[in-house]
Amino acid sequence: MAKKIFTPISSVGEFGLIDKVTNDIKPKHKSTIVGIGDDSAVLSQGNEEGRLITSDMLVENVHFDPTYTPLKHLGYKSIVVNVSDICSMNGVATHAIVCLGIPNKYSVEHITELYSGIKMACRNYNIDLVGGDTTSSSTGLIINITIIGEAQTNDITYRGGAKPNDIVFVSGDLGAAYLGLQILEREKQIFNKSDSQPELENYQYLLQRQLKPEARVDVVELLSKINVIPTSMIDISDGLSSDLIHICNASKIGFRLFEEQLPISPEARATCEELRISPAVCALHGGEDYELLFTVSPKEYKKIEKQNEIKAIGHMVEDRSFELVREDKSVIDLKSEGWDSFLSSKKHI
Amino acid sequence: MAKKIFTPISSVGEFGLIDKVTNDIKPKHKSTIVGIGDDSAVLSQGNEEGRLITSDMLVENVHFDPTYTPLKHLGYKSIVVNVSDICSMNGVATHAIVCLGIPNKYSVEHITELYSGIKMACRNYNIDLVGGDTTSSSTGLIINITIIGEAQTNDITYRGGAKPNDIVFVSGDLGAAYLGLQILEREKQIFNKSDSQPELENYQYLLQRQLKPEARVDVVELLSKINVIPTSMIDISDGLSSDLIHICNASKIGFRLFEEQLPISPEARATCEELRISPAVCALHGGEDYELLFTVSPKEYKKIEKQNEIKAIGHMVEDRSFELVREDKSVIDLKSEGWDSFLSSKKHI
Repeated sequence: MAKKIFTPISSVGEFGLIDKVTNDIKPKHKSTIVGIGDDSAVLSQGNEEGRLITSDMLVENVHFDPTYTPLKHLGYKSIVVNVSDICSMNGVATHAIVCLGIPNKYSVEHITELYSGIKMACRNYNIDLVGGDTTSSSTGLIINITIIGEAQTNDITYRGGAKPNDIVFVSGDLGAAYLGLQILEREKQIFNKSDSQPELENYQYLLQRQLKPEARVDVVELLSKINVIPTSMIDISDGLSSDLIHICNASKIGFRLFEEQLPISPEARATCEELRISPAVCALHGGEDYELLFTVSPKEYKKIEKQNEIKAIGHMVEDRSFELVREDKSVIDLKSEGWDSFLSSKKHI
Repeated sequence: MAKKIFTPISSVGEFGLIDKVTNDIKPKHKSTIVGIGDDSAVLSQGNEEGRLITSDMLVENVHFDPTYTPLKHLGYKSIVVNVSDICSMNGVATHAIVCLGIPNKYSVEHITELYSGIKMACRNYNIDLVGGDTTSSSTGLIINITIIGEAQTNDITYRGGAKPNDIVFVSGDLGAAYLGLQILEREKQIFNKSDSQPELENYQYLLQRQLKPEARVDVVELLSKINVIPTSMIDISDGLSSDLIHICNASKIGFRLFEEQLPISPEARATCEELRISPAVCALHGGEDYELLFTVSPKEYKKIEKQNEIKAIGHMVEDRSFELVREDKSVIDLKSEGWDSFLSSKKHI
């Protein structure tokens, strides 16, 4: 490739790069129900069930910082973030494949500890660990997890199904995982400068949200119990605004959110005050909460409005506008400012 | 984990580590036909078909050397080595998921080149590329491929099915990929010392075997056409001796091979002479040929003996001995001396 002008990946970002290298790919197998472009691939089983498959790579010092990430939590989280991708298709995770690249600074005991978290997550989420690959790595630890799940084909929820006037719901609360990361980074800086021990006891909820998140299998079960199939769904890994824009791009519509409806925990609000960050900014752009973000037809609203654990935060609109109605009723345009590992220097899974 | 004595992974090796962390894993889902321990996991589809899943991680400077590995070939090979794992279960590869970790020294053009090889392999092997993940890497290029395949449940071939007196067959020829790597390493050393251009034109077959191997889909099709289901099968990635020992360990028996039967190409023999290496040692321990190694019941021998592309090289024995009958009729014990990335400093995929 001599004489070519080389384009840095940072100039196009993760989504630009993926689009560039995959936009000419057309599935040929009848069993391919959905290929590239959603949280998981969907393959038909030759009956009414579909098999869901998702795979993610986590790299030391890009997605996790080993100085403050316990290996057991890291193993647990690496399973959870993929289970969350199966949840966001309205499916149930069933099988896992674990590939590890291990630098020689890690011992058998370290990997046993990492695996204890992987196995604990597999137990908690009722997943069979069925294979993988273990190799050495010349530098950092690499964890690549593939999770396989199942769903009735008619229940599977895609990004592209949202319609104008659908109600936007989110589970749990937002922004806490991002704040947990800020606290860990702050205490690491203090420790590096003064050798004083980190003060973490006031931030347990935020730290748990960052280091040991859970996938919202309970919300998938709830939706099934009340007979609601969302029109679209995604999990919040990149950030509410960025992930809702993914839904809008796939569905070719826009949204209007209401700041006063954003679910933010008391712990997150208190820490926002301490760090002088806007709670709404954390909730909109923080990412890594692994909550479910989904849209529901207005006629289903009655079935769902009183459920704990989920909250209506806005609605979809016909044009391509992405708007936030602030508490003072002013309206601002939202841009995607979530995680892109090629554009950002933030560290998180 | 303070005060613990840490055990280096090199003291137990890849297979020792995998065994230690996975030996307590028991599948719970009915759909899990086979979990950890074979080339691919096998999941039932609720009918007579099984779905096969395999995943492998390739790491820069562990599995490939970017100074002499064209990116297009690397992409092609990364698909092929996983397709080969599906072939070794007597299945057909259908879908691929590609996860990449990309250091910032790589440009959009580099990744486009890598993907052109990935897409070419997917076209040649009739595979749908259905998903993946692209992230940055703080150091080397990381490629993690998951391949999904299908097979009639009754046709799936495992490592553990070999019986005493079964005939051992191997497809193609052996040792050439290893010799190709030796030539590439030699020319790199010469280039580093003297800046003279590498002389590679006499070694085209060996280089192609190392840089752009093919999976033996044709052998799987042949076996189906002549109605032979092997009693066991594996692909030769670690080396004939090591991979046949994997079959023996799973089947709890041993083998007797005949040196004069080992298939070795004229190009490999000539290069062995030049490099003063024993052709049998290359064939037994070289690895990375991605040929299929399988056992067949003696009563099927007639169906298969005259097929091109496969050759009988020995038979299985009841006791756990691993023996090679040399050309001078002396008998030596074989040990596994194949690839283990934690034990070896060899570089290859």
